[in-house]
Amino acid sequence: MKDSAIQVDGARLANELEELAAISDAEPPAVTRVLYTDADLRARAFLKKRCAAAGLAVREDALGNLFARWMGSTPQAPAIGTGSHTDAIPHSGRYDGTVGVLGGLEALRALRASGFQPRRSLELLMFTSEEPTRFGLGCVGSRALSGATDAKSLAELRDPEGQRLDDVRKAAGFGGDLAQVRLAPDYYAAFVELHIEQGPLLERESVPIGVVTAIAAPAALRVELEGAGGHAGGVLMPDRKDALCAAAEVVLAVEAAARATHGPDTVATTGVCKVHPGAINSIPNKVVLEIDIRDVALAPRDIALKAVKEAVAAVAAKRGIQARVTELNADPPATMAPAVVSAALKACKKRGYEARQMPSRAYHDSLYMARLFPTGMIFIPCRGGVSHRPDEFSSTDAIRMGVEVLAETLAELANT
Amino acid sequence: MKDSAIQVDGARLANELEELAAISDAEPPAVTRVLYTDADLRARAFLKKRCAAAGLAVREDALGNLFARWMGSTPQAPAIGTGSHTDAIPHSGRYDGTVGVLGGLEALRALRASGFQPRRSLELLMFTSEEPTRFGLGCVGSRALSGATDAKSLAELRDPEGQRLDDVRKAAGFGGDLAQVRLAPDYYAAFVELHIEQGPLLERESVPIGVVTAIAAPAALRVELEGAGGHAGGVLMPDRKDALCAAAEVVLAVEAAARATHGPDTVATTGVCKVHPGAINSIPNKVVLEIDIRDVALAPRDIALKAVKEAVAAVAAKRGIQARVTELNADPPATMAPAVVSAALKACKKRGYEARQMPSRAYHDSLYMARLFPTGMIFIPCRGGVSHRPDEFSSTDAIRMGVEVLAETLAELANT
Repeated sequence: MKDSAIQVDGARLANELEELAAISDAEPPAVTRVLYTDADLRARAFLKKRCAAAGLAVREDALGNLFARWMGSTPQAPAIGTGSHTDAIPHSGRYDGTVGVLGGLEALRALRASGFQPRRSLELLMFTSEEPTRFGLGCVGSRALSGATDAKSLAELRDPEGQRLDDVRKAAGFGGDLAQVRLAPDYYAAFVELHIEQGPLLERESVPIGVVTAIAAPAALRVELEGAGGHAGGVLMPDRKDALCAAAEVVLAVEAAARATHGPDTVATTGVCKVHPGAINSIPNKVVLEIDIRDVALAPRDIALKAVKEAVAAVAAKRGIQARVTELNADPPATMAPAVVSAALKACKKRGYEARQMPSRAYHDSLYMARLFPTGMIFIPCRGGVSHRPDEFSSTDAIRMGVEVLAETLAELANT
Repeated sequence: MKDSAIQVDGARLANELEELAAISDAEPPAVTRVLYTDADLRARAFLKKRCAAAGLAVREDALGNLFARWMGSTPQAPAIGTGSHTDAIPHSGRYDGTVGVLGGLEALRALRASGFQPRRSLELLMFTSEEPTRFGLGCVGSRALSGATDAKSLAELRDPEGQRLDDVRKAAGFGGDLAQVRLAPDYYAAFVELHIEQGPLLERESVPIGVVTAIAAPAALRVELEGAGGHAGGVLMPDRKDALCAAAEVVLAVEAAARATHGPDTVATTGVCKVHPGAINSIPNKVVLEIDIRDVALAPRDIALKAVKEAVAAVAAKRGIQARVTELNADPPATMAPAVVSAALKACKKRGYEARQMPSRAYHDSLYMARLFPTGMIFIPCRGGVSHRPDEFSSTDAIRMGVEVLAETLAELANT
């Protein structure tokens, strides 16, 4: 490490990550924090307390996006933003998103302690619901902030219990006008997100920092299959329209579609399979699948998407089953801003850390921030590339190095 | 209808079935009443009230099996039992089981109103948890009564939340010693259960009554598949061990096994498919399947059972996934007692109703009662053979005719 006035306290950050991990609806080491649940709200309270202790001015918008600002010497100039999310899918790990939020906070504290005086304001941002767990749609907060999805559509989203997002957010204490959530295009001069890689490349190549050049284009489908139920003993095989057997064929078609496309990076996953009525002695009459298809390139992803839709239609026709396919989202990929990529690479050089330019195959709130603002991402390695699992792990040193690069990048962006 | 002193009140019974259907955790017309839930307990309270109003002496055992007795003139003689269950799988119908419970009550009321004097006591029996919804095991009550499953094994059953049956039954108000639940072999001289067919034969042939000769042999498997999870964007296809893709192959193998066996009556169903963690952007790391395989003959069922086990092993080996197969039960078929079959056929003749002798492909508490007592079943038609669905339906007339035959059968058995 070369000399720098900016000193990141890795141990303090590790303690905070541990405290945050304990705010969860799962048995440790698993973490579960679903939008607007008690665990989510307690995590927000924890973060607000830490931000206030760091002397940042905290505000929340009508969706619960949380902003913590360190006022610059030219407060009217567009600010520099950094941040990520603290929500966690069921039984996942403690680093996804949280490293960018608590690491962002640590970067601001380190900058302040170093005597750094920002010209532009520096702002930490915790996005509401990056994970799609509750409403089937990811990046709820950043979609609203960037205007990628309009406030009315978000308000009408329903969770599996049929509750409207608009009602749930109000019950969680977030009132106010959803239409006011969208940010002005000059709100940030740049946005940069620190995140674990969620893939194996950095670890495999022993490179401590990834500077992201593009974010993969995700598409999400919901497939509802409706056949005919009945008693598992009473209906002979030729008379059946078993929705789970149809779903099984779709699940295998999703896997085959990703394997068959020309893009070696195409991945397709059926992550949700809900069976009704879901009793051992009852023929499934309805199954809901949720499917995620993505690639760093748009063309092979869309080939796989088309293949899955065709497979659903073929299975439904063959089995005499009703099928409904809903495209939950199918966004284009995002290119990271050259100015932010340069600032991040310069920061790595200053610190003497090797860096690798790379795409992100996971999506992030930065995908949507990139629609309005020059945006970039900094990746750090995670063990085995594992994420969304309880054994997700990044070392205290790896996180510290990421925060150092983030802090240097923010300093560069704030004063140029 | 020929002359008989026994007058069944079909309208009263229809009203009671409607009242019972309203005690449910599902939106009408669907019915959900799962063991020891509030709906289950309220249904029991409703039944106890009606039994008391009919002058029957009510008792409950340590599992919640409910007995309502009309004392005969020779009370020390083994009694004649009739009954069924009131629990209902999620989103099912209102006739499965309830016709045998409330119909059994109506039969006793009709016999008493006719001036009939039983020599043996007549007893209505409502079995606890015929459906396997909560603990993955069907016929909990009748297994315990017959000694088919010992009290200790039943006590240790766990529901999906990990709660022990023994704790849950006590919390529901059923204390006492589980070891005392088992009945003595001379408790009943005969047992007869009225039930909807849950198949299409009686309706198709326009025959109002089925007299059951044997009950199909059910087998139930739980298959746990454990692969490797991870972020849906971060893990490339060749590196995956997706538990849901493996499960999909098993589901299709279950279907194929039933279709491939030589028994035309073999049916196999995967009714439960639980996916962990169950998020759209997470690769499933674990899936639990529950599989029901049955046939009126033992040999083809066991061929299908073997084929499914082999398929699980092959899929697991191919995909590098851990598989655990638990045989939840695999009981032999039960033959109905000639004396009860004769009494039921004689009752049909007396009433002038055409009857058809037939096997039951669904299992019932009578499967276990038959281990201890001479047992028989009376079937009535249900529309389209549909059961375990909200549109399950038997007409008031069809039910009345079934209760008339039940009452005549009970009279015959009680005094011979």
